[in-house]
Amino acid sequence: MASMPELVSESNVGQFLDSFDAFMTDCDGVLWSGDTVLNNANIVINKLISLGKQVFLLTNNSTKSRDDYVEKCVKLGFNVTKENIVSSAYVLALHLQQLGFEKKVYMMGTTGLAKELDAVGVKHVGLGPDPLFGKTFEMIDLVVLDPEVAAVVVAFDPYFCLPKILRAASYVKSVPGCLFLASNTDESFPFKGSNLTYPGTGCFVRSVECAVGHAAQVMGKPEPHMFEVLRKRHHIKPQRTIMVGDRCNTDILLGTKCGLHTLLVLTGVHKLDDVQKMVDDPSLNDQVPQYYLPSLGDLLEFLK
Amino acid sequence: MASMPELVSESNVGQFLDSFDAFMTDCDGVLWSGDTVLNNANIVINKLISLGKQVFLLTNNSTKSRDDYVEKCVKLGFNVTKENIVSSAYVLALHLQQLGFEKKVYMMGTTGLAKELDAVGVKHVGLGPDPLFGKTFEMIDLVVLDPEVAAVVVAFDPYFCLPKILRAASYVKSVPGCLFLASNTDESFPFKGSNLTYPGTGCFVRSVECAVGHAAQVMGKPEPHMFEVLRKRHHIKPQRTIMVGDRCNTDILLGTKCGLHTLLVLTGVHKLDDVQKMVDDPSLNDQVPQYYLPSLGDLLEFLK
Repeated sequence: MASMPELVSESNVGQFLDSFDAFMTDCDGVLWSGDTVLNNANIVINKLISLGKQVFLLTNNSTKSRDDYVEKCVKLGFNVTKENIVSSAYVLALHLQQLGFEKKVYMMGTTGLAKELDAVGVKHVGLGPDPLFGKTFEMIDLVVLDPEVAAVVVAFDPYFCLPKILRAASYVKSVPGCLFLASNTDESFPFKGSNLTYPGTGCFVRSVECAVGHAAQVMGKPEPHMFEVLRKRHHIKPQRTIMVGDRCNTDILLGTKCGLHTLLVLTGVHKLDDVQKMVDDPSLNDQVPQYYLPSLGDLLEFLK
Repeated sequence: MASMPELVSESNVGQFLDSFDAFMTDCDGVLWSGDTVLNNANIVINKLISLGKQVFLLTNNSTKSRDDYVEKCVKLGFNVTKENIVSSAYVLALHLQQLGFEKKVYMMGTTGLAKELDAVGVKHVGLGPDPLFGKTFEMIDLVVLDPEVAAVVVAFDPYFCLPKILRAASYVKSVPGCLFLASNTDESFPFKGSNLTYPGTGCFVRSVECAVGHAAQVMGKPEPHMFEVLRKRHHIKPQRTIMVGDRCNTDILLGTKCGLHTLLVLTGVHKLDDVQKMVDDPSLNDQVPQYYLPSLGDLLEFLK
């Protein structure tokens, strides 16, 4: 039986800060919204780094490389380097490297993913528009599969289209042992104040999975893969790590799955009303955070 | 507990033929494969019509209108008219007409679907390529939703792409009471002798459903909707109807769901080995046919 999370306040902040050495946090909805820093989040992150905490910025966004992310972070006043950034594209590339993968990847994705694959020396095809877009059944005679491909990666791709689904599914189904990986399964991108629903990578993954007939291996939150990569690389301990986020079904769930401390901030998707529902529904108890704060910036007064 | 289907043979064919007045059959894999008639299937269909049976050719293929289908059938030697053809596109249009739908449809689909909507006087937008293909997040400022749209229809569309998912999901989520319909959820199109997996409409439906957050109402097989439309229009009785197909999980399942007799032919997807598995697994028993035949053409010797 879960209970409601504890507000981080004057009375428990000491215990809270002492409970972790590693601070993992989601970005959009916690640190910033679009290009706007949320309530002093940058000052809090910089303070945590100066206090000697290991800080990791986690993102399911596969459209940017880590270099792109550092650039954005620095511009917004976060004193971080590449080592602080953990993106689903980076984890994907690292996963292939750790497997000793030496063949070629068919990728749906952007230059952000391509750069991460290049950085670990993994060859890839598929970047950019597909020359067969708009064709119909004649495609069957026009598609030539690349015999070197032995992995399919589905990430965010603005050129997502029918021939790309055909190629991805055909590799997975016809190449023996072909890897089938997805950067994340987020349903949509948040755009505040818009009545539009902008499709997330999950929409592409579900489509390819339907043609393939089985599920892809997912690298991003809430799958534990992202934490496992960090753990191996930085020797961090789950019981000395906190996961911070604005979404219970990705950020907090990842934390629970990996045995981490968890903190929900209310500057993004989920509010306390939502958490109450997760407390009341036993099947959602693993999405209930341990602590909450109105915003990450509210930590600032305790850090001075 | 299900048992294996009965072979239609000399000894039971009289009983078999007397059991139905209405003969509903799948097309691809039963009557033809691509543009080739399967083993005298045309002669059998013509014979059944001349014996006074009501014959209906059912297809989940939404790319052709019924007129297109009649043309194909006549070319292949089937003596059928428009009244014999039941496509998912036709059922979709009929469904909207029966609801008295007077607003506009946002459609993913081809001219085949557009013609069926035109035939019942339903206005539509979305046919053909989307002008925003290839754009990324700037789309949020470029998409203008049509205020007349109050239904989204997902059918096979060679121009399926990101902006179409965005529009479809945005209508369903932002327009109160917006209908969300799918022609069918077939995972792939069969192409014999190819190592390619050609995506079916199901791949598009799963993608839009992911962005929307709930399931579409499906018109085609194995959903009972297709039979219900026929029943209303032609006053046919389930217990006097047979459903014929080559796929247990669509054709036979539709038959079982609607209380029809069922016949599997082995000229398409499923073989007796597959049926044995469905017999052995209680959760798949509703996919086990009552009768089977190596091919529909094997009925011919009993019809002379």
